[in-house]
Amino acid sequence: MKRYEQLVELLATDIRNGRLAPGARLPSIRTITVQHGLSASTAFKAYYRLEEKGLVRARPRSGYYVIGPPAQLPPPAALSGREKRTSALVSSRLHISELVFSVLDAVQDTDIVPLGSAFPSPDLFPLQRLGKSLARVAPRLHGREMVAHLAQGHPALRQQIALRYLAMGMAQPMDELVITNGALEALNLCLSAVAQPGDLVAIESPGFYASLQALERLKMKALEIPVHPQDGLDLAALARALERHPVKACWFMTSFQNPTGTSLPREKKQALVALLAGRGIPLIEDDVYGELYFGERAPWPAKAFDREGLVMHCSSFSKTLAPGYRVGWVSPGRFGERIAGLQLMTTLSASLPAQLALADYLQHGGYDKHLRKLRHVMEARLASLLAAIVRHFPPGVRVGRPAGGYFVWVAFDAGFDALALHEAALARGISVAPGPIFSARRDFRHCLRLNGGHPWSARLEDAVQTLGMLARRQSPYAGPDA
Amino acid sequence: MKRYEQLVELLATDIRNGRLAPGARLPSIRTITVQHGLSASTAFKAYYRLEEKGLVRARPRSGYYVIGPPAQLPPPAALSGREKRTSALVSSRLHISELVFSVLDAVQDTDIVPLGSAFPSPDLFPLQRLGKSLARVAPRLHGREMVAHLAQGHPALRQQIALRYLAMGMAQPMDELVITNGALEALNLCLSAVAQPGDLVAIESPGFYASLQALERLKMKALEIPVHPQDGLDLAALARALERHPVKACWFMTSFQNPTGTSLPREKKQALVALLAGRGIPLIEDDVYGELYFGERAPWPAKAFDREGLVMHCSSFSKTLAPGYRVGWVSPGRFGERIAGLQLMTTLSASLPAQLALADYLQHGGYDKHLRKLRHVMEARLASLLAAIVRHFPPGVRVGRPAGGYFVWVAFDAGFDALALHEAALARGISVAPGPIFSARRDFRHCLRLNGGHPWSARLEDAVQTLGMLARRQSPYAGPDA
Repeated sequence: MKRYEQLVELLATDIRNGRLAPGARLPSIRTITVQHGLSASTAFKAYYRLEEKGLVRARPRSGYYVIGPPAQLPPPAALSGREKRTSALVSSRLHISELVFSVLDAVQDTDIVPLGSAFPSPDLFPLQRLGKSLARVAPRLHGREMVAHLAQGHPALRQQIALRYLAMGMAQPMDELVITNGALEALNLCLSAVAQPGDLVAIESPGFYASLQALERLKMKALEIPVHPQDGLDLAALARALERHPVKACWFMTSFQNPTGTSLPREKKQALVALLAGRGIPLIEDDVYGELYFGERAPWPAKAFDREGLVMHCSSFSKTLAPGYRVGWVSPGRFGERIAGLQLMTTLSASLPAQLALADYLQHGGYDKHLRKLRHVMEARLASLLAAIVRHFPPGVRVGRPAGGYFVWVAFDAGFDALALHEAALARGISVAPGPIFSARRDFRHCLRLNGGHPWSARLEDAVQTLGMLARRQSPYAGPDA
Repeated sequence: MKRYEQLVELLATDIRNGRLAPGARLPSIRTITVQHGLSASTAFKAYYRLEEKGLVRARPRSGYYVIGPPAQLPPPAALSGREKRTSALVSSRLHISELVFSVLDAVQDTDIVPLGSAFPSPDLFPLQRLGKSLARVAPRLHGREMVAHLAQGHPALRQQIALRYLAMGMAQPMDELVITNGALEALNLCLSAVAQPGDLVAIESPGFYASLQALERLKMKALEIPVHPQDGLDLAALARALERHPVKACWFMTSFQNPTGTSLPREKKQALVALLAGRGIPLIEDDVYGELYFGERAPWPAKAFDREGLVMHCSSFSKTLAPGYRVGWVSPGRFGERIAGLQLMTTLSASLPAQLALADYLQHGGYDKHLRKLRHVMEARLASLLAAIVRHFPPGVRVGRPAGGYFVWVAFDAGFDALALHEAALARGISVAPGPIFSARRDFRHCLRLNGGHPWSARLEDAVQTLGMLARRQSPYAGPDA
């Protein structure tokens, strides 16, 4: 790492941790040069980079200041009451799908500003280059190629994925990997492999609605574990829940969690794996945003600490490369045979043209170069959204500053009604993802998830302004907490 | 239809129906010219065509004779006892997957003669032409194309499929169709949409093992309805079963059924739809072999008679065009919303490159021309397999002569052990599909399914000879019925 990059990383970490609070002035260039023994040009380069990342802003003749978010998220207890939750956290029935679909329907419409979308903005994806890979592999799809290699996915792609694990320092043998129809199929197969109807499964609260839908579909019960706004899942709450309840499996997103954007730090991932290993509980790890990190290094997944084969690590190319290709995978630990068997019974395999095109692209296409650019741009876009929220949302709104991914989780005061905002915003051509779709018990009615992955534009600025106006209108009705 | 084609159809129908029995001599060319008012060259052309189809054989200076199969299948009662079945036909637990997988594993190996395979032989598929479609659509996969149009599948493909329905005289609006990851996903989604764990579902006996696996996976119960060797599902047995049991749904293959190759005639399809409509029972119709008919016209599916929206018509391109693309669909009747919703929760959608390439191919690629050739060649290959069975299998073996598809169902005497034959054959590098994998109760131990879709070769001839030798060896152990 170059010296200016070291300085960027140092200051960016302090800003994300809150040690350098919003509004704080960065040390002057002069101070930096003296303290760190750097040239002024190196120090300037570092500050320009931080500005580019959307973390600081220069004020003429004054210096560099840390910008938004206006405040961190409240502690989990304040989100909806941890103690109340610990006693009432088993949801017997979810009934979530209808609500989720009514929200997602709106996102399909291209005329709607897609702040509620879960999809990445595809404008940065190397689709031309991928198209070339597709054209290159097309003639190879002949004869037995078309029917052999279906089970578990094509070896060429499994090899490329195994190499990427290796580059991270994780050995996941290609013979164990199972290629799936997106991470969504991987997650659903994992769940079916380790739990039965009626079983209790621990999920995050708030958490990705696909886990809620899967539990509802398979008639399992949700045990909601609160997510801490700074460092992800509340492990102490999980440990207490495991004492009290017969949890059959966990389904967690350990890095850049959807919807909060939070990550478990490395040592907490290790502790999570140890906690579950002690009880022999399988972990379904959803890691689809892991490659979209803003720091200098990829976060290790919990899978990296798995010695017992209890962690099923699920990911895909849908957030970084090619959502429509529908290719994901799972490194399944000890559950590989069961997962592969379930896939053979339900979809047989992922589509071969997409698998082979991705294998070709991974081998020749410059995926890492693409990812570096993608991370860089995502961080800047997210910063633009955060800054717009500061400008337009009512004072007192709380947002986190994610260290990766493209979601911003916004918490209003307790009386706020995100479902009402969702309706009002839709009527003005703007989608948002209201908090209740991320909870089996429809908690988080005072929260919103916004997609910050789209290129910043006047249209987005207007949309955030409109949301802010609609949120302010709610204040009179917000009740005593507002 | 040309005059010689009319004659071919007339005689082929008589041969398939058994009105012209194996060994029977066809009318002389002279008789034909007189009876039908045709020229001798037209009559010869028809006979050549029948020979090409593998239905007749010329004997020098003697005439044309109907060749194999040696006998028709026994009536369903003789297969495993219909009355016994009607009382004991509910299988509480299936435990079928392990057996199926152990059989299917062998088929993966390219060194094994694939008589046990369920896959079509890909040698006839227009993969070069499909590859061109893939290359052509590749650059179109950009921007919002990649995330829009995921739900229900891409409109371009839905439109092409709707046009094919229209060409058959069936109006299935493209807005209702759901594109899936192969027919297998369609079938599984349909089942989840209309039945719950514990529910009773009527299936065919013998029947496609995917239905058994699906019921086992979803903890549903199987009600086995016998398949008649001439004209498919025993409707009277179904009607009796519906009187006695609370059947929640049916899952049937109405044309060129896997494994028996039988079809429900048009009037029986209509009667089936009426029977189920009277009770409001949904029908999951698996029609993946419907395009592989040897007659002059495509058989209508049961869906064609559906007025209530109770029939979910599932098919795919996997048996005719591109198995590895994993693209199928369902025309879902009144269950479309539920099926599409379940897909959004589990795999999201089928892969876009494959969908768009197929849409392009259907629009420009000459699918109908390809299908005509495929049907022609399949029929001849199947005839080669039937003829080899006549040459090499023990006398008394019974086989049907399918009017479409590529499977031959072989019934030995009652004491025969197809699982033992499967093991012995595998040791000699030959796979077969033993009868018990097609039954929830592991019936049909005296039966085999053979794949007749591969190009005929000395290797296949040898394999059939070896199977015949192994079958003869079993005779001493076959028990009193043998």
